[in-house]
Amino acid sequence: MSAGFVLGLDFGGTKIAMSTARPDGGTLRSVRLATRAEDGAETVLRRALEAARRLVAETGADGGRLVAAGVATFGVVRGQRVLLAPNVPGWEDLPLPRLLADGLGAPIVRLDNDVNAATAAELRWGGLAGVDTGLYVNLGTGLGAGIVVGGRVVRGANGAAGEIGYLLRSPGEPGHAAGRAPLEEHVSGGGLARRASALAGREITARELFGPSVPAELRALRDAALDELGMAVANLAIALDPERIVLGGGMAAEPAPASRLERLLARAVPFPPALEPAHFGADAALRGALALALDALP
Amino acid sequence: MSAGFVLGLDFGGTKIAMSTARPDGGTLRSVRLATRAEDGAETVLRRALEAARRLVAETGADGGRLVAAGVATFGVVRGQRVLLAPNVPGWEDLPLPRLLADGLGAPIVRLDNDVNAATAAELRWGGLAGVDTGLYVNLGTGLGAGIVVGGRVVRGANGAAGEIGYLLRSPGEPGHAAGRAPLEEHVSGGGLARRASALAGREITARELFGPSVPAELRALRDAALDELGMAVANLAIALDPERIVLGGGMAAEPAPASRLERLLARAVPFPPALEPAHFGADAALRGALALALDALP
Repeated sequence: MSAGFVLGLDFGGTKIAMSTARPDGGTLRSVRLATRAEDGAETVLRRALEAARRLVAETGADGGRLVAAGVATFGVVRGQRVLLAPNVPGWEDLPLPRLLADGLGAPIVRLDNDVNAATAAELRWGGLAGVDTGLYVNLGTGLGAGIVVGGRVVRGANGAAGEIGYLLRSPGEPGHAAGRAPLEEHVSGGGLARRASALAGREITARELFGPSVPAELRALRDAALDELGMAVANLAIALDPERIVLGGGMAAEPAPASRLERLLARAVPFPPALEPAHFGADAALRGALALALDALP
Repeated sequence: MSAGFVLGLDFGGTKIAMSTARPDGGTLRSVRLATRAEDGAETVLRRALEAARRLVAETGADGGRLVAAGVATFGVVRGQRVLLAPNVPGWEDLPLPRLLADGLGAPIVRLDNDVNAATAAELRWGGLAGVDTGLYVNLGTGLGAGIVVGGRVVRGANGAAGEIGYLLRSPGEPGHAAGRAPLEEHVSGGGLARRASALAGREITARELFGPSVPAELRALRDAALDELGMAVANLAIALDPERIVLGGGMAAEPAPASRLERLLARAVPFPPALEPAHFGADAALRGALALALDALP
């Protein structure tokens, strides 16, 4: 413990999870609280910072001191702001990096979006360990990816690398400028559930679409969407030439997305990358926040 | 000259170009010869190496010594082989890196494909200078791209990063495994010329498609192809979040590709990158070969 400990903090749309951990990643203490987004950004942040300081104090009472904090958030982290983050009203207006630096009492604070953080966790401890060029695809309620080049997570010029939910499906359709996220609306868990519900005339969850008794027309909708997703991932693999692709998020637990994607990769990519399930599940972004903190240590 | 000079060598399908240059990139001597691909790989390489040694000897006679060589080739450079290089019969069977190291007499030899080399030239002297995350798109007879992350050209796990000619246009179509390059066949200069010729029932060049008197049906074919290309580039920009995209190759000299792409980028990409014409034209790969050599110097 004399080497100190790190804090990881994951802001999600419905819950906020945080842990302290040893330098080897072993968890020391954890706590989670409801986000209660309707209270607004300042209240959400204040509650989280209070809980984090308590967690740090309790961990410190066992010995050691906080040496770095990593924070994962929905949205796109660009400079002092988090953009494309409608989940919590006012989140986009907070200078989050500065408020976290002031509020956490850590000598080093790193902030990135949840999918990039999950990618950092896979890179440090999971399916992308040791990879120079790789890809993490998060197929959950939303859709996002993390890109690894040179053994590091690519942030891009505006922190928006990997935001594949915005990919166009056809040249003429409305895109980001029209408030749309074409691929995410079509193939993410949330998008699939909305489209299947509209087709069936009743509420259908993404999970139901992968069940054994799914009606033929819904299965067809699901499989066509998985093939469109597969094409997008295969095209990304053609452009990037990764040695490995890791599939995470809730839908990655189903066999259909991976098996369809694997066939498409073999057909389309000159050097088909290995495809593997993510090491981390529901705690991917929290583990990622810890990875961000550890990556920042000298 | 006491600092030595570098050699750049560009293997193209119809010509082989080479130059020696000062460390600042200033050209010292140049020569070019016909590839004569039909003579086969060993003869093509032998002639090129003889010409290169003469050029190096002549440059050296003026003072200085060869400190590094950079070589650009069609195909994909993977380990000791150049793959996906049907232009010269037998090229894929030569252990080119070793033969170049043996034959050029340079203490350092770097080999990459022509589009990655052109990207290195834009990065060192051209439109991508100073860029951390960027994209070079070569729109010529063929179609290819170079990806820049962390101020370096991304090679990928197999040297195939940026091979966007293989991108799928629809999930079910035949791809690389079936010997196809879907996007290149559809939107490259060569692909456009073939498709326009088939539609018109006579030989049409890509250049004619951009002329003032192009018939409406051919213009429609051209513009639909440019929009498909634009979507592919916009999607790559969404995934990568580059700060700048540089457009090179013969078709980049026309105004239509850039203007259509710029509109698509503004519509689709959350943070639309700047779009600029390439600094280098027909000599892009040769300048790239020199950049590879200079990049390799300590």
